[in-house]
Amino acid sequence: MYSVNAIATSAEPPQWVLTLSCIDGPGIVHAISGAVVAAGGNIEESQQFASRDTGRFFMRLQVGAVAPGGPEAPAPFEERFARALAPVTERYRMTWRLDTVGRPVRTLLLASTATHCVNDLLYRQRNGQVRIDVPLILSNHTTARDIADFYGVPFEHRAISGAEDKAAFEARVLDVVEEQRIELVVLARYMQILSPGLCEALAGRAINIHHSFLPGFKGANPYRQAHARGVKLIGATAHFVTTDLDEGPIIEQDVVRVDHSYSPAELMQLGQDEEARTLRRAVTWFAENRILLDGDRTIIFR
Amino acid sequence: MYSVNAIATSAEPPQWVLTLSCIDGPGIVHAISGAVVAAGGNIEESQQFASRDTGRFFMRLQVGAVAPGGPEAPAPFEERFARALAPVTERYRMTWRLDTVGRPVRTLLLASTATHCVNDLLYRQRNGQVRIDVPLILSNHTTARDIADFYGVPFEHRAISGAEDKAAFEARVLDVVEEQRIELVVLARYMQILSPGLCEALAGRAINIHHSFLPGFKGANPYRQAHARGVKLIGATAHFVTTDLDEGPIIEQDVVRVDHSYSPAELMQLGQDEEARTLRRAVTWFAENRILLDGDRTIIFR
Amino acid sequence: MYSVNAIATSAEPPQWVLTLSCIDGPGIVHAISGAVVAAGGNIEESQQFASRDTGRFFMRLQVGAVAPGGPEAPAPFEERFARALAPVTERYRMTWRLDTVGRPVRTLLLASTATHCVNDLLYRQRNGQVRIDVPLILSNHTTARDIADFYGVPFEHRAISGAEDKAAFEARVLDVVEEQRIELVVLARYMQILSPGLCEALAGRAINIHHSFLPGFKGANPYRQAHARGVKLIGATAHFVTTDLDEGPIIEQDVVRVDHSYSPAELMQLGQDEEARTLRRAVTWFAENRILLDGDRTIIFR
Amino acid sequence: MYSVNAIATSAEPPQWVLTLSCIDGPGIVHAISGAVVAAGGNIEESQQFASRDTGRFFMRLQVGAVAPGGPEAPAPFEERFARALAPVTERYRMTWRLDTVGRPVRTLLLASTATHCVNDLLYRQRNGQVRIDVPLILSNHTTARDIADFYGVPFEHRAISGAEDKAAFEARVLDVVEEQRIELVVLARYMQILSPGLCEALAGRAINIHHSFLPGFKGANPYRQAHARGVKLIGATAHFVTTDLDEGPIIEQDVVRVDHSYSPAELMQLGQDEEARTLRRAVTWFAENRILLDGDRTIIFR
Repeated sequence: MYSVNAIATSAEPPQWVLTLSCIDGPGIVHAISGAVVAAGGNIEESQQFASRDTGRFFMRLQVGAVAPGGPEAPAPFEERFARALAPVTERYRMTWRLDTVGRPVRTLLLASTATHCVNDLLYRQRNGQVRIDVPLILSNHTTARDIADFYGVPFEHRAISGAEDKAAFEARVLDVVEEQRIELVVLARYMQILSPGLCEALAGRAINIHHSFLPGFKGANPYRQAHARGVKLIGATAHFVTTDLDEGPIIEQDVVRVDHSYSPAELMQLGQDEEARTLRRAVTWFAENRILLDGDRTIIFR
Repeated sequence: MYSVNAIATSAEPPQWVLTLSCIDGPGIVHAISGAVVAAGGNIEESQQFASRDTGRFFMRLQVGAVAPGGPEAPAPFEERFARALAPVTERYRMTWRLDTVGRPVRTLLLASTATHCVNDLLYRQRNGQVRIDVPLILSNHTTARDIADFYGVPFEHRAISGAEDKAAFEARVLDVVEEQRIELVVLARYMQILSPGLCEALAGRAINIHHSFLPGFKGANPYRQAHARGVKLIGATAHFVTTDLDEGPIIEQDVVRVDHSYSPAELMQLGQDEEARTLRRAVTWFAENRILLDGDRTIIFR
Repeated sequence: MYSVNAIATSAEPPQWVLTLSCIDGPGIVHAISGAVVAAGGNIEESQQFASRDTGRFFMRLQVGAVAPGGPEAPAPFEERFARALAPVTERYRMTWRLDTVGRPVRTLLLASTATHCVNDLLYRQRNGQVRIDVPLILSNHTTARDIADFYGVPFEHRAISGAEDKAAFEARVLDVVEEQRIELVVLARYMQILSPGLCEALAGRAINIHHSFLPGFKGANPYRQAHARGVKLIGATAHFVTTDLDEGPIIEQDVVRVDHSYSPAELMQLGQDEEARTLRRAVTWFAENRILLDGDRTIIFR
Repeated sequence: MYSVNAIATSAEPPQWVLTLSCIDGPGIVHAISGAVVAAGGNIEESQQFASRDTGRFFMRLQVGAVAPGGPEAPAPFEERFARALAPVTERYRMTWRLDTVGRPVRTLLLASTATHCVNDLLYRQRNGQVRIDVPLILSNHTTARDIADFYGVPFEHRAISGAEDKAAFEARVLDVVEEQRIELVVLARYMQILSPGLCEALAGRAINIHHSFLPGFKGANPYRQAHARGVKLIGATAHFVTTDLDEGPIIEQDVVRVDHSYSPAELMQLGQDEEARTLRRAVTWFAENRILLDGDRTIIFR
């Protein structure tokens, strides 16, 4: 995800966010902060983490421009910053990404019948809480159409009744990703299993949400199984999509308390509320460049 | 658990607790409340639940004695109540149990090396928060001995280094259960797997605690696995012991939030805090006759 | 609230809910359950509570019809039940209410600029999670209009710029309550203080939501104050409206964790999420007849 | 708290923790990380925060020694680090503190009758979870004596029955603080109000714990008031002691859910559990140099 060294172009907001990772070692922070100083910037927010598992170092910086300063003055800040960063990122062989704080992330929503996640994301997108642009909702059902209409988001229905339909649906996903310069694909209760090819094509930029229980239940109708086992907590997990079904790097999890009196239907409704909340947080953090990958684990710089 | 129709004998506290279950049908509450009235009692607290899964009806009543009233006056309340209940429990073929509110439950603690659950239960037992009497702690390690000494609880160490030792340990458990009239066996981080025979002998009166994760992890060193997967919540589950390892009816669950910066050791420490809290609740509810079994599910009348 | 002995008329759902309160004493449950039996009903769900503070007894019953049974057969169940209840409610001088389970409660929403509570309630009303009918949204601002339009709910704007406007607004509230047979008024972030007269007219059937902090903050801009004090939890309280501003009987409360890095604006956004969730629960419980009043305290039969 | 530039002496653990604050401006991180590099160190963990409220910058670094390197090789790392830091801390007029990671903080516990906080801290101190040394427990009651004995901690009882006793108690506190080089005073349910003089003498190094409610309650017997108002959450707040009673900078807060059926006594017991948990966290963070003060707010670098 971080190998695309995108430089955001919006000049409006006065902050930039730099995320990076490299093999841990002395002097990294000093070198990075030196580039900030050289570009005439100020560190507004900074988080870092040294992983003992992989020996890698991770950092997220929010930087503001202080003053024109010196010979770089005419150039926009992000150019100056990128120029000052170049020798550092090269020397430490960093994977990095520079973005503008607050820039909405171009997001494709995939949906099926359930609308709770789509509704929650669009409501919060509109009120500014979740910084995403949604050029399209692609669904194999029509239930989300009127919500899409209300929020003025294009909606495209493609029924899936066989392998051929599914392949066509996935091809359409890849086309949209390219045509619309999609940065994030959100499986907002899209209930089809992605093909391995699509999983790989979207690695690190596709987020899925699913219910979670203690203990976990495999197979169909998990809320019925959870009811049968009398669980006391039901929850949701948002994770990156990988070819291991529902086993990608975990981004966020949450639970809610239930008791013996809840029917499977009530468990499902509460579970859906948790799904919407949990997915919303994962999408927000992605849009704010707060999620980095350390092997199979996520680093969340909240 | 409820087939032993124990009648508690302490006359001091003025309330009794009746728990019962039977096949659901009209008139049950009316019949039971009629017995309360006939015995000169008053319902202080009542909870009930009709299970759609099994078609059974469950009830927990706390009853106080109102007045001597009528010809039964000389008899103690629980005798009058038991007499009034007899035709009702017979007619509806009820499984029932009558106990005194606040009577400490005779409890055997099984322990191994970790002491967090033993310490928590004994501290709360002493300050009156958890109503249990602990005539013995039986452990295959010695680490809990000084805590036991401090709280004045007999401690017995029996090392387990092979199948023979384990069989002897389990035989000792059954002896203590009988000699000491033990009502509840708590596996307070006792790390040996119980034999099927012992599980059956203690069915419905042995509580275990173990760590829980979303998703679940099988095998050794689960905190290391949880760390490797980057889970965001770690928790604990208290359940009745059955021959299905860690799959008995769930009594209570809880979780705590963690993030990428926690080491496996820190995850374990937080997990242990959750284990102590969760086990404490399960033991408290058991001691207060708040747990009933509906097939593989627990009904918790909190 | 419970003095209006409304008998719901929908014959469709096969369950009825009875809520009642009276001075505590022996025999109440027996008498009530006798009326259920006499009417040919079965108790599906029952909760009760004896208040030591006021000496009153509270009960909530869900009852299904078993069989036509006896000479009352031709009459609908709720008539038979009401007839059987009459001598009991009279004898114990009960305040009671009989309703149909699942009947949507006629609800008037009052709003101002913020739309998070209105949006949450209407979304959940439409998907069946919150059982209310909303014949009107009355607001002193226009921000909620398009959400109302989307959900097909009539919206009426009445600006308030002085005492006269406010009196007219409140008069309109009372008119709507009468004309539309409103059972519940929800102040969904309606930011005007209700006059004492309106508070009294709506006693026990108007729910307000507001932010809550540990410790509490009086005066303007509480999120700024909460930020200044560095609180670690922010929350929301749903309560019945009384003439004591924000001091009515508490129905539900919840909190979310924050830290030093949250700006006042971010605190407010998280606080609004909590407000929507907390209000939703309070409205749901009201619609399900789960809230009873014991002096200044609520009994919540969940 | 951070003006004492203590240099810890333990050579055993290979990490040091640096906390600092100064007026925010460009180049701070670069200068600090330069000192780390110059001393032959590596940044293992780093957190920072720029306060918009006060314009100050806050940082916490954990640093390990990489290599002897250069002419400073013979000197211990913390000496080299202190020498390299000197021009930086001077130039930015920093308040700073350098400590050894894992060094137990010398802590004086003040207690009264309730023992839940003392017990929790001592249990966790012994198992290594909370890094404190407790040379003395000073109490105006004797209830904590046997717990102190069990954990081998000196216990001193000084009854307080009037102003003179209290002044003597406080004088003894100050003596102990000096004689025992106390770094942290924990009011572990010490129920006397500290005099303004003592508050000032202990500013930034005394932590208090008290119950917290939504809304807050003033005056005696808050659990009874909370019960009377029917609160649904009860909690605890740990804060620094200031002359404003219970209004010092908040360190940590937590809550637990309750309902109408809890008696005042039960509320108190749950509240005490929350107090112990919340205080434990605050003490742990203090011992790990994770708490910095930004005016009346705490920065918690978890």
